[in-house]
Amino acid sequence: MVMEQNLWKHIQYVRTKSPLVHNITNYVVMNNTANALLAAGASPIMAHAKSEVPDMVALASSTVINIGTLDEYWSEAMLLAAETAHTLGKPWVLDPVGAGASPFRDKVLQELLNFKPTVVKGNASEIMALAQANQEATKGVDSTAASNEAIEAAHTICSAYNAIVCISGATDIITDSAQRIQIANGTPLMTKVTGTGCTASALIGAFIGVVENKTEAVTAAMALLGIAGELARKQSKGPGTLQLHLLDKLYSLTEKEFCDYIKISKP
Amino acid sequence: MVMEQNLWKHIQYVRTKSPLVHNITNYVVMNNTANALLAAGASPIMAHAKSEVPDMVALASSTVINIGTLDEYWSEAMLLAAETAHTLGKPWVLDPVGAGASPFRDKVLQELLNFKPTVVKGNASEIMALAQANQEATKGVDSTAASNEAIEAAHTICSAYNAIVCISGATDIITDSAQRIQIANGTPLMTKVTGTGCTASALIGAFIGVVENKTEAVTAAMALLGIAGELARKQSKGPGTLQLHLLDKLYSLTEKEFCDYIKISKP
Amino acid sequence: MVMEQNLWKHIQYVRTKSPLVHNITNYVVMNNTANALLAAGASPIMAHAKSEVPDMVALASSTVINIGTLDEYWSEAMLLAAETAHTLGKPWVLDPVGAGASPFRDKVLQELLNFKPTVVKGNASEIMALAQANQEATKGVDSTAASNEAIEAAHTICSAYNAIVCISGATDIITDSAQRIQIANGTPLMTKVTGTGCTASALIGAFIGVVENKTEAVTAAMALLGIAGELARKQSKGPGTLQLHLLDKLYSLTEKEFCDYIKISKP
Repeated sequence: MVMEQNLWKHIQYVRTKSPLVHNITNYVVMNNTANALLAAGASPIMAHAKSEVPDMVALASSTVINIGTLDEYWSEAMLLAAETAHTLGKPWVLDPVGAGASPFRDKVLQELLNFKPTVVKGNASEIMALAQANQEATKGVDSTAASNEAIEAAHTICSAYNAIVCISGATDIITDSAQRIQIANGTPLMTKVTGTGCTASALIGAFIGVVENKTEAVTAAMALLGIAGELARKQSKGPGTLQLHLLDKLYSLTEKEFCDYIKISKP
Repeated sequence: MVMEQNLWKHIQYVRTKSPLVHNITNYVVMNNTANALLAAGASPIMAHAKSEVPDMVALASSTVINIGTLDEYWSEAMLLAAETAHTLGKPWVLDPVGAGASPFRDKVLQELLNFKPTVVKGNASEIMALAQANQEATKGVDSTAASNEAIEAAHTICSAYNAIVCISGATDIITDSAQRIQIANGTPLMTKVTGTGCTASALIGAFIGVVENKTEAVTAAMALLGIAGELARKQSKGPGTLQLHLLDKLYSLTEKEFCDYIKISKP
Repeated sequence: MVMEQNLWKHIQYVRTKSPLVHNITNYVVMNNTANALLAAGASPIMAHAKSEVPDMVALASSTVINIGTLDEYWSEAMLLAAETAHTLGKPWVLDPVGAGASPFRDKVLQELLNFKPTVVKGNASEIMALAQANQEATKGVDSTAASNEAIEAAHTICSAYNAIVCISGATDIITDSAQRIQIANGTPLMTKVTGTGCTASALIGAFIGVVENKTEAVTAAMALLGIAGELARKQSKGPGTLQLHLLDKLYSLTEKEFCDYIKISKP
């Protein structure tokens, strides 16, 4: 119960502090990412110009880098942001969307990892691709299966880069060097809404921007999204309406709902 | 009835096979395009970097190229994708958004056509602009009027490039070298939602990725979208809610609804 | 009452004339900007390629430039569009998103201002940053506080560039060289939906494209958005559903609703 209460406090804290979150993310999800950050009480800024990326990293509480629709220019901007965050000691999140889908992605990801992200958040196949630096084809960007192999991959990344690793899926798994936490909230219909994983990364960015305990920050963000999705599902007839009710719930979730619904465990 | 039953089978087949659809599309519609593909059971990937476009074309079942917000870099990426698809014998869709609105668009479109798209999908004014390689100004990108002139233009493109041509509008017209099929589903309110035509192209991409008979694939995609829109309209108070209910219906449409509502004819 | 009746006539006029509005705007809001323009009866085109920007400016009734996610290429395209509009005597809107957040933004904004926008629309902190060409950090892009300082800043821009200035906020303030108009519609929840301010700029673009009296055009656009938001709020449980109901209301707003709800004053 102590953990649950801390997590709720972090959700409240984000709502109160309204951290400025700098995002270099993909075109597909920019709108709902920004809306999710606003709904959770954070203040989003999307900026990718090499001419201003260092200013934006410095201005923000945290930076979120999501490579979903990367290209040559954007990957340079991402590297510049990651380097700046690393130099300034600012927390940042890496979302390795589509890791393993092309050698180009994998190369950029390896370079980004060298700037030691505070958190790496991906689905199981992305985390495995990242750990193995392999180039196996992934099936799209919405894979959800987690497994022991994925957990091992998470440990590899965790040790190599001193990052907290979050594997999103039916059960979200959060690992740091000391512990493993599982969140079993959410609903399968969330996989039918594009960018739910990207929203997770953005929310993680908001939480690590202001919460001292980074592992709890990641856990709070994942629990918030999972529970909001679960409650939104009850009002939705499909993925279209789910997307909207999810934003509403991120905005309106109460402590009672949070405590009633959270399914957290430490295996 | 044989045709209708085949079309429903194709819809089921896409839901079962979940084809990976590679999209190089415009910024405006990326989010709802991805959501529409997910709702219909497909697996979208958006990727435009010249450094990985050939990998993505090879990985996917099909590629959809939509020039809505093209620029110099993106048009090179599109040409690279089209060339790769042509070389590998992969099916691909061309959506010539805003054809005729600028010489730049028309030039890129002519180059793309040389890589022989499997399907060209546009509204009447775009198909006419494409056939005539003319540079008359089009009124925006949401024109809907079809006409004999548009059908003639479709035949011209069909013969010149051996492509199936789909003219979207109040009545959708699908022509290949042997036949003409008309779908009279949909609702006028769909023209007040941005990117409905782009969603059509993306769905066509999903269907031609896995369905052998390409003309039936295009027809199934257009019927699915039109019927889903028609049913979504009943629950909507305007274009905002229509967009969401449309995604819900793409996801949940039943065989009974499909068979009850389809308005298909061969004139 | 004369003013109110004129404003409603302008709203009707946009619905009837369906002006083509050319937008160079940010990635985050392109989808809902296009949808808002369609819902209000206008015809949006998004185009940023340097190879076609002059054609698009010439084709459209007006151009809207929003620097939200600018970069080096896009800023050149924006300057080209602004220059073309200025040369052709076409009305255009500048939305200085994030003014003051980086020297890069401020430099591009000063260059854009030299092409004399018809209207500058920003929140209070952006208008102040613009007037002072200062480089103070702004808190994100959703600041809403208006003040005497902001009104002074608006007057400075108004005199220096002969532009109508609109400060969006809880009360929207519209100033030209002769008068000041205030609109007190809207709802605080609109600040939790990304791009509401960008929608305002786009709607202003639609109205100045066809309405002769530019100050009334700006006022009508702001009143339409504010009232639509206020009415949409009644049906919404949070920012997600608000976004959709807002589009519905832009589409369906009646004269009676407009006249019953408008809160306009000239202090």
